[in-house]
Amino acid sequence: MTVIGLGEMGFALAGAFLDGGHPTTVWNRTPEKADPLVAKGADRSATVRDAVAASPLVVVSVQGNATARAVLESSGDVLSGRSVLNLTDGTSEEARAVAEWVGDQGARYLHGQIMTIAPGIGGAETVIFYGGSHAVFDHFRPTLQLIGGRGTLISADAGIPALYGMAVHGTMWGALNGFLHAAALLSSEGIEVRRFLDDAGPSVAALLASFPGIADEVDRGEYATPYGALQHHRPSVEDLVRESRARNIDVEFPGYTLGLVNKAVEDGHADDSYSRLVEHFRQR
Amino acid sequence: MTVIGLGEMGFALAGAFLDGGHPTTVWNRTPEKADPLVAKGADRSATVRDAVAASPLVVVSVQGNATARAVLESSGDVLSGRSVLNLTDGTSEEARAVAEWVGDQGARYLHGQIMTIAPGIGGAETVIFYGGSHAVFDHFRPTLQLIGGRGTLISADAGIPALYGMAVHGTMWGALNGFLHAAALLSSEGIEVRRFLDDAGPSVAALLASFPGIADEVDRGEYATPYGALQHHRPSVEDLVRESRARNIDVEFPGYTLGLVNKAVEDGHADDSYSRLVEHFRQR
Repeated sequence: MTVIGLGEMGFALAGAFLDGGHPTTVWNRTPEKADPLVAKGADRSATVRDAVAASPLVVVSVQGNATARAVLESSGDVLSGRSVLNLTDGTSEEARAVAEWVGDQGARYLHGQIMTIAPGIGGAETVIFYGGSHAVFDHFRPTLQLIGGRGTLISADAGIPALYGMAVHGTMWGALNGFLHAAALLSSEGIEVRRFLDDAGPSVAALLASFPGIADEVDRGEYATPYGALQHHRPSVEDLVRESRARNIDVEFPGYTLGLVNKAVEDGHADDSYSRLVEHFRQR
Repeated sequence: MTVIGLGEMGFALAGAFLDGGHPTTVWNRTPEKADPLVAKGADRSATVRDAVAASPLVVVSVQGNATARAVLESSGDVLSGRSVLNLTDGTSEEARAVAEWVGDQGARYLHGQIMTIAPGIGGAETVIFYGGSHAVFDHFRPTLQLIGGRGTLISADAGIPALYGMAVHGTMWGALNGFLHAAALLSSEGIEVRRFLDDAGPSVAALLASFPGIADEVDRGEYATPYGALQHHRPSVEDLVRESRARNIDVEFPGYTLGLVNKAVEDGHADDSYSRLVEHFRQR
């Protein structure tokens, strides 16, 4: 096992491999970062070439796929016949470009999207979405278990894990923005946000229960609904805008949602479900 | 039991009371709406005054609290000594204004925020947040169970239920916007959104697990975090913006989040958690 890149995440990955009893070779631009890992038994390579040459599986965790490729290029001709697991964040297109280049070097390629922060590495519940070589995933499966217990190969396409990660994170940022705006409203009244959550937990959780139905509507492209249509959302969003204004809380955020709903209603979709708004996002 | 207003929601409420075996009087501006309820045994009043005079508890479900008050005003002097349960949506200030006016008429007041659409009325899991008179809530508790199994009195303040409802809905709209933007991305690649949910369900659900920690940070006003700070969110939000642009999907939505994160980082909060953004929403 070789780990290239010892940032917060790469360091955690190398530590998990070592903890699992795997001989682990590491390389980092600033070599001192490896000191605690060397103390735990890691081999430190002076060059990327030596690091790559040391193991059948080369794990890359750096800042951006341009860097991932540049670092791998610096290994010269030793990549051929090996496997690369690239755990570097970026877009789907960038992942595919690295996959193609690695393939051209005669190596197999797997891309992974890690769905946790560094302390979660090695957890039984830690999710990693993999895309690319089925052979690499299968061959190194026991090793991959060491970094995340819930690793799944979702596609033969190395670009898909990034899309999955973005879909989860984009949903998360949307929810967090909504929750933090709500927290600003609640705390302006002196309500503890934690107390609100204790009271309203089931209602917030019910949110997630609505996602599969929404997914089905989007997949079918059919949005008509007998209940809870956009025209019924509208007065509630208007209330939120008015409440925010009255409390001197940001109105831009709820105003954005109101704009989406108003536009859809004006475009003749008053009787459609909220899912209809996917069409808005499809148009730049 | 009297129900004033037979829109989608009022109609469902009256139906639930009748189904529970309660003598129920109804009034609606257009009386014919009551026909199916009368067929089920409801008494139809010709005037609001008669409707209010018929029951110790008067349930109001109309469009907006200005209408709620105007309708109650038209009952003349028969409100005194009765209890009003107002289930009309609006802002906290509007609910308090109705509460004050009802109190001035010598009646007791409870406000309820219904957290479901009409078909959910009567469900064992249906949540209704109540605020106002403890006496009304306690006295009519068995009756209130008929419209929603999870009704809780959260405050003596009639304005709080509206805030709770907005906090849940605001979080929901944020999450839905994020999810629908993600759906646009996924479907641009030909990925079924339902399939994504099946694969990524635990990751999406993990979102909710983060809310209590965020609530605590907001309540304490302490945002420093050793992991997953705003500076680590930033490159991922940038990836989402780039991916959206490359796929011709809306960039305004992720761009808004990137703007929030960039501003917070520039203001010196790079090492703070995402919760820090509550401070942004507190400033108009």
